[in-house]
Amino acid sequence: MSTLRSRKIVLAARPVGEPRTSDFKLIEEELAEPGEGRALLRTLYLSLDPYMRGRMSAGPSYAPPVEVGDVMVGGTVSEVLRSSVAGLSPGDLVEGRTGWQTYGITDGSDLRKVDPALGPVSTALGVLGMPGMTAYTGLLNLGQPKPGETVVVAAASGAVGSVVGQLAKIKGCRAVGVAGGQRKCDYVVRELGFDACLDRRSPELAARLKEACPDGIDVYFENVGGAVFDAVLPLLNPFARVPVCGLIAHYNDTAPPPGPDRLPGLMRQVLSKRLALRGFIVSDFAEQHPEFLREVSRWIGEGRIKYREDVVEGLEKAPEAFIGLLKGENFGKLLVRVAS
Amino acid sequence: MSTLRSRKIVLAARPVGEPRTSDFKLIEEELAEPGEGRALLRTLYLSLDPYMRGRMSAGPSYAPPVEVGDVMVGGTVSEVLRSSVAGLSPGDLVEGRTGWQTYGITDGSDLRKVDPALGPVSTALGVLGMPGMTAYTGLLNLGQPKPGETVVVAAASGAVGSVVGQLAKIKGCRAVGVAGGQRKCDYVVRELGFDACLDRRSPELAARLKEACPDGIDVYFENVGGAVFDAVLPLLNPFARVPVCGLIAHYNDTAPPPGPDRLPGLMRQVLSKRLALRGFIVSDFAEQHPEFLREVSRWIGEGRIKYREDVVEGLEKAPEAFIGLLKGENFGKLLVRVAS
Repeated sequence: MSTLRSRKIVLAARPVGEPRTSDFKLIEEELAEPGEGRALLRTLYLSLDPYMRGRMSAGPSYAPPVEVGDVMVGGTVSEVLRSSVAGLSPGDLVEGRTGWQTYGITDGSDLRKVDPALGPVSTALGVLGMPGMTAYTGLLNLGQPKPGETVVVAAASGAVGSVVGQLAKIKGCRAVGVAGGQRKCDYVVRELGFDACLDRRSPELAARLKEACPDGIDVYFENVGGAVFDAVLPLLNPFARVPVCGLIAHYNDTAPPPGPDRLPGLMRQVLSKRLALRGFIVSDFAEQHPEFLREVSRWIGEGRIKYREDVVEGLEKAPEAFIGLLKGENFGKLLVRVAS
Repeated sequence: MSTLRSRKIVLAARPVGEPRTSDFKLIEEELAEPGEGRALLRTLYLSLDPYMRGRMSAGPSYAPPVEVGDVMVGGTVSEVLRSSVAGLSPGDLVEGRTGWQTYGITDGSDLRKVDPALGPVSTALGVLGMPGMTAYTGLLNLGQPKPGETVVVAAASGAVGSVVGQLAKIKGCRAVGVAGGQRKCDYVVRELGFDACLDRRSPELAARLKEACPDGIDVYFENVGGAVFDAVLPLLNPFARVPVCGLIAHYNDTAPPPGPDRLPGLMRQVLSKRLALRGFIVSDFAEQHPEFLREVSRWIGEGRIKYREDVVEGLEKAPEAFIGLLKGENFGKLLVRVAS
């Protein structure tokens, strides 16, 4: 059997602040034989997600960092080419974490089969994948939205935010989004059915948000931080819930911002309004995966959950696309088509 | 029947920063007849508690502020002198919220009878009252301590902190306290049975706390804020719970402290460690009062929960004692004996 050459993108340097394309390096290597008990996968789609910025930095987090010289981590949808893993056959479609490369070798332990009947296979990385499940588990378990309440989410046209708002509507809530630019806001209201969506770049964001939330905010699904959080905080109602799943506005921070120190003020808000702030990552709720897949795929089928993908062609485009993601340049779930 | 003269302490001015005795005024008034459907109470004990500082300021909180000229709010234990309230008879002992005054008139709706068989009536304002119940409900509902975990609480010799730590021991946890000065720390370890107690004034508080919590911190019961929170934050374990019931270190703040701004850093900790920060006040768990009273009075009887009172004689001493409370000058639950 002929040897395959694999292309992979490795971390070339730890970024300081905003990543640059020179922090990544595309290399090409001859692929080793997978060996007994392993499978060879061909990457079809690579998912690009904000959490990857955290993995590029050293320092404590909920997952170890990528080492310089190692392949960038990432979720993928792949086709099985060869396999000596029980239950895995050539032609199977799988979702896994083989990273920024054209081929992956796996023992199968971190894979899950993708059912193409549920939708295009790319959705296994978006609305029916990690971002969709982040929205589903965080909103329902920690946000606990009740009919008539107001739910606010930023990055509302993105992979997580779009599902948060549509789930809020399904649960009978008022859904208010924040997104970057009028085009995205129009999409969020007209296509996704949010009650309102505000441009995060507006200098009057705080005033606009107040108008859009006449009864205050009961759930703020935190995936950005920064100016949106600042606008949200004074509007939170007593007993508001704040699931915290991301802080993209701060991922490139190199030092704490200048003062005054607002930490004590935040704690006073937590106390006087009895707020519940809780961080989570999707794997904390891994046991809810079957239920998530069943419910969300049904809602997609019923047209109650819509999604949008922003697909970049070719692995070599991943660094640039990822840098754009951190600036909000994508419109919808950002994916790299690595092979078709 | 002869008219009674009542002495009361009113808010004379809203304090800026630390309250001064001139922010209070003692006045004497002729007491009106209670009237039909009301009862006349004679105050035996007045409770002094940190939350009162919040009531002296205007601005949004979970309760409306005391207006200038109004009697200071506060929990009391009183004896019923006259009553036309159903179920309330002269000689009954009641806990209520009649404030800083020698007599109170009430329609009975905010009263609860005190059973002197459970302990000295003063405990209805301390270990068997609001502070004890704050510790009980906050620690058990929000802190959810599990055997083998580490629970940290500040103001550990105080009315709330002392119960938090002793409950933590009952639940099989390691209990670590922080208190002001060696004398209080010795009491917390030797009398209350905490595993360790650190002097909050030590310049090496952070290092000492780290030594005292070799397995990190799973529950931090937040009742002070400030330097203790700063020392605790880096030691919090993944999935740590932080019930927030008070921030006495900040009650006299007149402006946010200087920078850098640590709010984004706190949110990153919430995310990366999946922390749960949740504010509460004791009335959020009002339905648990019978269970609290039953369990804690039993533990007192068994010697598993001890308490200490710091009793000041005479209503006129309340302002000075309250100002001292905010500086941590009391040693144990601070009470004013208004009449015996």
